[in-house]
Amino acid sequence: MPGLSRRGERMPPSPIRKLVPLAEDAKRRGVRVHHVNIGQPDIESPEEFLEALRDPGTRIVPYGHSAGLWEYRDGLVEYYARFGIRVASDEIVVTTGGSEAIIFAFLALADPGDEVIVPEPFYTNYNGFAVEAGVTLVPVTCRIEDGFRLPPLSALETRITSRTRAILICNPNNPTGYVYSREELEALRDLVVERDLFLLSDEVYREFVFDGAAAHSVLHLEGIGDRGVLLDSISKRYSVCGARLGCLVTRNRDLLSAALRLGQARLCAPTLEQKAARRALDASPEYLEQVLDEYRARRDAVFEELAGIEGVLAVKPKGAFYTVVRLPVEDAEAFARWLLTDFQVEGETVMIAPAAGFYATPGLGRDEVRIAFVRKVPEMRRAMRILKLGLQAYRGAPARAGDRAGP
Amino acid sequence: MPGLSRRGERMPPSPIRKLVPLAEDAKRRGVRVHHVNIGQPDIESPEEFLEALRDPGTRIVPYGHSAGLWEYRDGLVEYYARFGIRVASDEIVVTTGGSEAIIFAFLALADPGDEVIVPEPFYTNYNGFAVEAGVTLVPVTCRIEDGFRLPPLSALETRITSRTRAILICNPNNPTGYVYSREELEALRDLVVERDLFLLSDEVYREFVFDGAAAHSVLHLEGIGDRGVLLDSISKRYSVCGARLGCLVTRNRDLLSAALRLGQARLCAPTLEQKAARRALDASPEYLEQVLDEYRARRDAVFEELAGIEGVLAVKPKGAFYTVVRLPVEDAEAFARWLLTDFQVEGETVMIAPAAGFYATPGLGRDEVRIAFVRKVPEMRRAMRILKLGLQAYRGAPARAGDRAGP
Repeated sequence: MPGLSRRGERMPPSPIRKLVPLAEDAKRRGVRVHHVNIGQPDIESPEEFLEALRDPGTRIVPYGHSAGLWEYRDGLVEYYARFGIRVASDEIVVTTGGSEAIIFAFLALADPGDEVIVPEPFYTNYNGFAVEAGVTLVPVTCRIEDGFRLPPLSALETRITSRTRAILICNPNNPTGYVYSREELEALRDLVVERDLFLLSDEVYREFVFDGAAAHSVLHLEGIGDRGVLLDSISKRYSVCGARLGCLVTRNRDLLSAALRLGQARLCAPTLEQKAARRALDASPEYLEQVLDEYRARRDAVFEELAGIEGVLAVKPKGAFYTVVRLPVEDAEAFARWLLTDFQVEGETVMIAPAAGFYATPGLGRDEVRIAFVRKVPEMRRAMRILKLGLQAYRGAPARAGDRAGP
Repeated sequence: MPGLSRRGERMPPSPIRKLVPLAEDAKRRGVRVHHVNIGQPDIESPEEFLEALRDPGTRIVPYGHSAGLWEYRDGLVEYYARFGIRVASDEIVVTTGGSEAIIFAFLALADPGDEVIVPEPFYTNYNGFAVEAGVTLVPVTCRIEDGFRLPPLSALETRITSRTRAILICNPNNPTGYVYSREELEALRDLVVERDLFLLSDEVYREFVFDGAAAHSVLHLEGIGDRGVLLDSISKRYSVCGARLGCLVTRNRDLLSAALRLGQARLCAPTLEQKAARRALDASPEYLEQVLDEYRARRDAVFEELAGIEGVLAVKPKGAFYTVVRLPVEDAEAFARWLLTDFQVEGETVMIAPAAGFYATPGLGRDEVRIAFVRKVPEMRRAMRILKLGLQAYRGAPARAGDRAGP
């Protein structure tokens, strides 16, 4: 029997989703699971989006333009202009989720064996896209002790080789919530210009910044020219993760041509959602303001609760709706499994995402987890209290293979 | 400035879509263009699909299972059972269009440099997926003189090398409309079993068979076991090309695992459409019977008109809604361009798809085009009459570079 390809074998399971069967087992046993493992918001989508779906104005669902419906791209031009990002509609290729924007960038800019430098921890699915494209992700480590800011530029420079094609950042960051400073971004720009690289910037959490922080876009950077590539998604902005709409934005004509050709192969992104997303762009500013207030309240509640847990290290993030937390355990994945299989508080437990999957350097992140602020304040507090009780029970339990109770 | 990757450069434009700018120009000049170039049906989608969209029953659009919503997969199990294809819901991975099913199969089963044998002419986007995956498509030529049936098995056998991983067929066929016989499929099965290969079968036109022909599935084949992979899409079945839903079906556990992991990287297929597609599975049999009657009538009308065009060679197909036609011109692409740029009949012209893009062997198909039966009978007749007049005018015109009037 012929087996899988090497990349078929190497394709990683989602570290966020691989514990799902354990959560399903827990639910079958009647345990309520608080899902703070996944970036699936409980926020309602804008009325404009839902309304457009209800009345698609057509009796058939035809193909759309492979680079996206013009009406939607024209709307996106206005949307980006609100953030001072000046682009034309033909500088936008609408993709099937932000996922496809990333894979298109990898395919169009890198060949198998080429390298992309990425600060770690990073959005775990970059690993999957890298395996698909045969690209090697070269990590530079950001440390929780430094608040996950970028390490000195020299740390990036030493990782550049003849195979390096791009630096990929996520800003505001998933999983850390870190928001890059203007200075960091300008330093990255100088580096990619000097070393003849692309700067890919995943900016899907643009709207979610707190405490006066500003999310600067790669396309804001003066002199970035043809090297800047913005990767985007509406999943989190409008709470429409299942709609699968993103886009790739660049002023690089060659890349736009390649993205269009990649787009033609798969024909088009979902068209009904593009029409609905066009309408969602007209949602009142209050919609996103309320969403932002809600995430800020959740973040603050989580950090109030975390402050009361002994041995936990966490840095309050200024962006996105995640935080990476160091736990007083040696193997956070074993602990996350145990929470689902062996623990409950009055019939409830909590599901967290082990952070090792967000690092490319082996061994890093083993004692860290990602927490997503995707449930309402009372549930976030409840989840953190269950986490606290879980940690107490786990550390007090007899030592087990692979996880002696930590310091 | 860093350039594109080699595959970014090599990624082919869609031969079906590359003439679109010329059609847009013609429309701007006030010319009506009859689009028989693309497989975009004008048939209405089932009411059940549209109704489900109107009432999604949710205020948010969340992620779904990476392998597809269980309710939809359970529905697909029943759907396939109606065709005698017995599969379980966990043997189905829902994909974003049939496109993604093909790319998942390529990625999971072949490494860069590996080969997939495919009868030509073939669905042109296989070329794009092959470039993305670094896979080499190895063609075996089916001839219009033979009605596009499979050549003798020896023609396939001689193309098998140590890098061959699979044979990929499309049945009923796009672009030829050919429907594989049971004997042909059994011979392919024997070959893949003997030579340790996979048999990938793109069966998106399953319902569209005429004149008593039967569309046999790869999963009907006794003894195909873990080697059979069914690739599917609802785009044509329900006239929902813009909904982007397909699936990969196999009994091969390793491939299912890899497809799930590939699916996890891009999170999920569009969820609203999965719910709507679940409802569309309940559409009355009359819906598809009427659609089939309509396509049969269109095919018959096209062939009546083609019979009246001198120098045209065409074979009435028993499946799908396409035919590949040999025209009395040397360069069908130049002719197709000319129809859009230099020709009109009372303010109307016709857009056809040059067939060279459906072949991998250089030089083949240069005098052929694909015609899609995607407009109502009167418009199909009108389009064929314009084609006839266009051929007369083109062949009567002074010889031009690259296209002397053919035999």
